[in-house]
Amino acid sequence: MIMTDDTICAISTPAGVGGIAVARVSGKDAISLVDKVWKGKSLSKADTHTAHLGTIVDENGEAIDQAVATVFHNPRSFTGEDVVEIAVHGSRWVQRELINLLVRTGCRIADAGEFTRRAFANGRLDLAEAEAVADVIASSSRAAHRIAMSQMRGDFSRRLTDLHDRLLELASLLELELDFSEEDVEFASRQKLLAIAQEIHSVVTRLASTFATGAAIKDGVPVAIVGETNAGKSTLLNRLLHEERAIVSDIHGTTRDVIEDTIEIGDTLFRFIDTAGLRETTDVIESLGIERTISKLTDARIVLWVIDSAISVEQLNTVAQRVLPHTSDDQTIIVALNKIDINATNVDTLQSALKDILPQGAVIVPISAQRGDEIDALQQHLINASGSADIAPGEVMVTNARHYQALTRAGESISRAIDGINMGISGDFIAQDVRETLHHLGEITGTITTHDILGEIFSRFCIGK
Amino acid sequence: MIMTDDTICAISTPAGVGGIAVARVSGKDAISLVDKVWKGKSLSKADTHTAHLGTIVDENGEAIDQAVATVFHNPRSFTGEDVVEIAVHGSRWVQRELINLLVRTGCRIADAGEFTRRAFANGRLDLAEAEAVADVIASSSRAAHRIAMSQMRGDFSRRLTDLHDRLLELASLLELELDFSEEDVEFASRQKLLAIAQEIHSVVTRLASTFATGAAIKDGVPVAIVGETNAGKSTLLNRLLHEERAIVSDIHGTTRDVIEDTIEIGDTLFRFIDTAGLRETTDVIESLGIERTISKLTDARIVLWVIDSAISVEQLNTVAQRVLPHTSDDQTIIVALNKIDINATNVDTLQSALKDILPQGAVIVPISAQRGDEIDALQQHLINASGSADIAPGEVMVTNARHYQALTRAGESISRAIDGINMGISGDFIAQDVRETLHHLGEITGTITTHDILGEIFSRFCIGK
Repeated sequence: MIMTDDTICAISTPAGVGGIAVARVSGKDAISLVDKVWKGKSLSKADTHTAHLGTIVDENGEAIDQAVATVFHNPRSFTGEDVVEIAVHGSRWVQRELINLLVRTGCRIADAGEFTRRAFANGRLDLAEAEAVADVIASSSRAAHRIAMSQMRGDFSRRLTDLHDRLLELASLLELELDFSEEDVEFASRQKLLAIAQEIHSVVTRLASTFATGAAIKDGVPVAIVGETNAGKSTLLNRLLHEERAIVSDIHGTTRDVIEDTIEIGDTLFRFIDTAGLRETTDVIESLGIERTISKLTDARIVLWVIDSAISVEQLNTVAQRVLPHTSDDQTIIVALNKIDINATNVDTLQSALKDILPQGAVIVPISAQRGDEIDALQQHLINASGSADIAPGEVMVTNARHYQALTRAGESISRAIDGINMGISGDFIAQDVRETLHHLGEITGTITTHDILGEIFSRFCIGK
Repeated sequence: MIMTDDTICAISTPAGVGGIAVARVSGKDAISLVDKVWKGKSLSKADTHTAHLGTIVDENGEAIDQAVATVFHNPRSFTGEDVVEIAVHGSRWVQRELINLLVRTGCRIADAGEFTRRAFANGRLDLAEAEAVADVIASSSRAAHRIAMSQMRGDFSRRLTDLHDRLLELASLLELELDFSEEDVEFASRQKLLAIAQEIHSVVTRLASTFATGAAIKDGVPVAIVGETNAGKSTLLNRLLHEERAIVSDIHGTTRDVIEDTIEIGDTLFRFIDTAGLRETTDVIESLGIERTISKLTDARIVLWVIDSAISVEQLNTVAQRVLPHTSDDQTIIVALNKIDINATNVDTLQSALKDILPQGAVIVPISAQRGDEIDALQQHLINASGSADIAPGEVMVTNARHYQALTRAGESISRAIDGINMGISGDFIAQDVRETLHHLGEITGTITTHDILGEIFSRFCIGK
């Protein structure tokens, strides 16, 4: 499955020019191959975890660069193989030339994720932990990073291993029964089976239920901003952007038919989707735009409805008719009653009117985007609504669609097992559902995998990891 | 001059997301400060040049990332101070958070070039070597890299030190004479003085004369492509681009009023300046464009004149009138007589006509940009004209304008000393010119510097180096 005969190399640091760049070389010949282009103390004689100053020299004896090479002996390395990390000056030319030289010497350029894949193949990480490495690298907020770190450090895997052990216990009781089926013995008390299966079902379901929040935190919690053109949406967005700790402005892989701004508030990344133009129209093109807005609104976890506090209750009701029908119970509605610095007197009236029409759980925050009043309060409501504050330290969150799918399937099969036990059907049918549950959990940690699944997973990594 | 009391930190790898990123921490408290955020084997107890796996932990005990920390004890580090290099996962969030945490712990964010500046302050590098570090990082071709590496490794500095020693000898002979001036002794034979001064003058002048080629190789040899619109300039550029080893497409800091393509041919980087529209015009705007073209043409070291071999000798003379008056003796003219695949018969006629009007040293290469004929020959002529092939291995080239200036001034003052000796003027006047020469050479290696010069030099570095 894994070619462990060859030695791979790649630049592991970000692409571009910098003070230093690091090339990673991994495989059984890593140390001897680097030694061929190394002038300095022989790396083959170096102890593990030691760094050495020397020069990278090409076939003609020309110095490519001064470098620091750090040697890691198997199995005490990231991949579990012999690894040399070579720190050189971070020029484009040196980086390219070093890799070219290593390839000429006998290394192969690593595929995306191949170092991590080797770490998995060598048992340094299970599959869920390996996948988390990519999530750690992609994390752009503390909350996303925290979940990815927890997964990389095996918290999720340990939870699954617990489940796996309970299931194996269940399975073995049932298998034993089957072995003696002619004698009509019942080794596994149906009551006990039911209790174990129900507990497993409950844990699997709870894990799967964290996916919506987990995925939102990982990719940024989607917030749809709605409201009339003059309500102050842009001013509010700019205000939030201004107060943020950092902007992550690149959104890869998404077609941006609506404008998105990502803002880190507290520890959580939010994706603000500006849905311009929710209004009555007969224009066909504009109608299409509004349809798209409505579909974006449906995808959001939070609807941030900005209202100009100068409007009348009648106008409010008209606007509400365009917003509220498109929201759902899964979403949190936060109403930002804007411009309170100019319309203080109307605010109370609007607040009572809003309370009558808003669904349960909706929040009203009077603010002034212009002056910055109550922006803190609004931010706190956003954090609350994101669910990130509800994550207990050490709580396991599911952020990976593949894991979510496997958990959902595991939940379905253990659910069938429970039904089977309740209906008193024969042990071999129940055993089959239990084995299927085991299979789905095994898919997550990689005890059960196919070459295709692995290729799919690791191709999403960056080169050099 | 240098604050060595504080400990500095910065991300040293290129900006962006990657498998790993490396933060460098340098200063007298580097190891103990990193230890405060380190969970793992105590780094303070670690041997120099050893790498350790551990976890970066913030004040609240939250894990920021798994990391490998490599410890370098002073003076055996890049800066000559205690240094810890921390390799973490290359996410934006981890990189930012690690630096924030280090700053909260007591580090200061390094200024641009501050690590190298400390290396200079601690005598690990002289100034010319330190400046070469930035050149090594910026190098985008083998030839540029080779010159920068040679300078970083001290070849240039050793040459200067030789000169310095010879000058000191000269100065001491003269000073001795001054001490005994009342007795009218002449310790320093004027013949011997003259010989030493002339040798120094010759070396300084030769070094300074390498600057034009050195600077061109460092930044890319400027080639102006001129010719009529239908001569095939674009086809030729595309052909050269197609055959290149790599494109370096970003040109920073230049206003691009003309299109520039950089192409690495052989080991040398060329900047092709496409000077569209050298033709008679009455249009004012177009005239301005042509003026700009002419000024770009003047800056080029090589003029690549592309001619459609279908034109008549008469037409050739008209075109020549627009090109040749703007070229100078310092430039090499390469005529690419294009489209020989279609106009083979006319080529000989044009070649003889060209030989009559071209200045000495100009080269004519019949080619077909379309079919790729003789492109190799053209590339070889470009390499020859760049001067990069003339650099003997180990030859010292001057690429830095500051060094060129200092060498020129040193040349001027030693020249004055020679005149003085020839005119038989008194030793104290000659001694003054010799001291001035010493001063200018000292500026290059940094034995004589001011805070301002250092600030100017290192601010051009990237952060983290």
